[in-house]
Amino acid sequence: MTADAKLSPKAAASLLPTEGPLIPEELQLATRNGGMPLEALRYDITPVGLHYQLIHFDIPDVDPATWRLRVDGLVERPLDLSYDEIRALPAEKLTVTLECAGNGRARLFPRPLSMPWLNEAIGTARWRGVPLHRVLDRAGVSRKAVDVVFTGADHGIEKGCEQDYARSIQLDDALRPEVLLAFEMNDQPLLPQHGFPLRLLIPGWYGMMHVKWLTRIEVLAQPFDGYQQQVAYWYKKDANDRGEPVKRMRIRALMVPPGFPDYFTRHRYVEHGLVILRGRAWAGKSSVARVEVGIDGKWTDAVLHEATLGAFAWRSWSLEWNAGPGDHELTCRATDADGDVQPTKQPWNFQGMGNNLAQQISVTVR
Amino acid sequence: MTADAKLSPKAAASLLPTEGPLIPEELQLATRNGGMPLEALRYDITPVGLHYQLIHFDIPDVDPATWRLRVDGLVERPLDLSYDEIRALPAEKLTVTLECAGNGRARLFPRPLSMPWLNEAIGTARWRGVPLHRVLDRAGVSRKAVDVVFTGADHGIEKGCEQDYARSIQLDDALRPEVLLAFEMNDQPLLPQHGFPLRLLIPGWYGMMHVKWLTRIEVLAQPFDGYQQQVAYWYKKDANDRGEPVKRMRIRALMVPPGFPDYFTRHRYVEHGLVILRGRAWAGKSSVARVEVGIDGKWTDAVLHEATLGAFAWRSWSLEWNAGPGDHELTCRATDADGDVQPTKQPWNFQGMGNNLAQQISVTVR
Repeated sequence: MTADAKLSPKAAASLLPTEGPLIPEELQLATRNGGMPLEALRYDITPVGLHYQLIHFDIPDVDPATWRLRVDGLVERPLDLSYDEIRALPAEKLTVTLECAGNGRARLFPRPLSMPWLNEAIGTARWRGVPLHRVLDRAGVSRKAVDVVFTGADHGIEKGCEQDYARSIQLDDALRPEVLLAFEMNDQPLLPQHGFPLRLLIPGWYGMMHVKWLTRIEVLAQPFDGYQQQVAYWYKKDANDRGEPVKRMRIRALMVPPGFPDYFTRHRYVEHGLVILRGRAWAGKSSVARVEVGIDGKWTDAVLHEATLGAFAWRSWSLEWNAGPGDHELTCRATDADGDVQPTKQPWNFQGMGNNLAQQISVTVR
Repeated sequence: MTADAKLSPKAAASLLPTEGPLIPEELQLATRNGGMPLEALRYDITPVGLHYQLIHFDIPDVDPATWRLRVDGLVERPLDLSYDEIRALPAEKLTVTLECAGNGRARLFPRPLSMPWLNEAIGTARWRGVPLHRVLDRAGVSRKAVDVVFTGADHGIEKGCEQDYARSIQLDDALRPEVLLAFEMNDQPLLPQHGFPLRLLIPGWYGMMHVKWLTRIEVLAQPFDGYQQQVAYWYKKDANDRGEPVKRMRIRALMVPPGFPDYFTRHRYVEHGLVILRGRAWAGKSSVARVEVGIDGKWTDAVLHEATLGAFAWRSWSLEWNAGPGDHELTCRATDADGDVQPTKQPWNFQGMGNNLAQQISVTVR
């Protein structure tokens, strides 16, 4: 196989999970969608450009001078807002950890064919934007409303369905106080790849929900039937299973790989003696209650540091390790306040969604 | 094969070019090293976070308060400069296009094993920094000097060789007026992944020369014998060929893929009628003289726009295309002022360096 950009017609026609090697289409997605190198877990706020991005189609070219946000559907007063009008509304700041629902997909066997993430589809940013409920209040949502659809300017075809990227959320979730229409990330206007001029933020949910390049908010009397809502982003056993929709981020911890790497294998080398193992943990539907570190199969509780970044961002943790020479296997797993704990053997699902397998790192201590 | 982060011992031991499929080690590199999505060719200056990055080891954690740049070796007055001292020196701005020497590697057959770039290891930034010759003048370079070595804070192992990343350049090249010690990128302090607090910029050269996270500049009386200079980055026919060192960027043009994509295959769909094909072209050892666009095998000269970004950055080009319904193959190739033209069939080399194969895009016009 050459890793050429020419299509593999067989793969294009059949997107069933594969037991085979990585294919060129996966590589095309991997070279254009960046993950967060895990050493960047050291930063409270992920520096600009290191936050993961997953862009289904192309980054659209939006001119803020002519861009408008339309708010319509079951509302009393449809709105048509300019970029300046949005930025003039009372805004709030929130630090939010985002993770792609497909993170970890490439570890599954058979492997669902889509962006082949390993562990790095994460990031935490300081967002600023207008609480959505204020905009919806201004529009006057009908009492018949049940669902709110968010449409982006990104356009393409996915599994034969031509579309503008769109996702919906139930009205009660849309009205939560933490939901923002964000126009700043890390104290700067949104970058093109993160949704300029405006994106949705539904803190706690997997990344597919935070619609970028927003153009329209539509209020519906019935559940939205778009592709990204009804076809993509489901926990399914097989092609015929209806399954359960992907929503909030599952509990997860990740560790900064200690020591230094080999360029190609990324195997780690660590000096013997006291090593501080550090990482972050987050939970989308609850809160982080516990982080454990596994060293050669033995679990020890890490110190879980205070949640200084707020309820919707990762928490840091650390553990002192007296590293003796030789090869060691490190892992970490978090438990949330509901008692959900990360698996050490990943349950499989048909689309490769919501993987939160405990991270594994092989190190050689010298 | 599962795309797990666990090492494949066979691949780790033998880094010979492969005729086989993509391996997990290549995926690990692809998910942590981001390319520039080609629609970003639309921007004169690549927005922050969309510029490609290739990081051999880890992004180092540098504290600017304690960081120092040492200038020593064959100099009369060794220097030890703080971040504030560097930033207080007279600085200059320069717009520079960078390309990874391994760009296009994944298209070769057999495929050299390293970061599996397709076309996207590029970017153009507005850099600001101190001309290197001023710092070297201040240190007083010995008349015996022939080579200048630049060492970064990034540490790791590559093909069995433990090292801080380091590259050298001959003294006369180091003294060229466009060579900068850069501390700003796109009007902001360098981001961690781009070399904070200070990186080298040798405009016109492939990316390996622009050493990030600089800690030391050493002047030598003989050529530097480090790994990245003597082992990596050579044009070689086979393992035993000494070959030629990789230096300046070869002539290249790239096109914004027109229309919109299919998510997984990235196949393009275009509306029929007038389409403006647009792109950029650059040349590291000369200047861009011509860009041609191939449509279904027929070459037409594109309009080469003025070099508004200076001598070291890409130039934009465009061509009007009256697109008729059906499937079409688009390509583009540039020619430099020396008459070098991009190949439409890529010559192979052992490390996968300096590939400038004409880009190919399949589109369906409807």
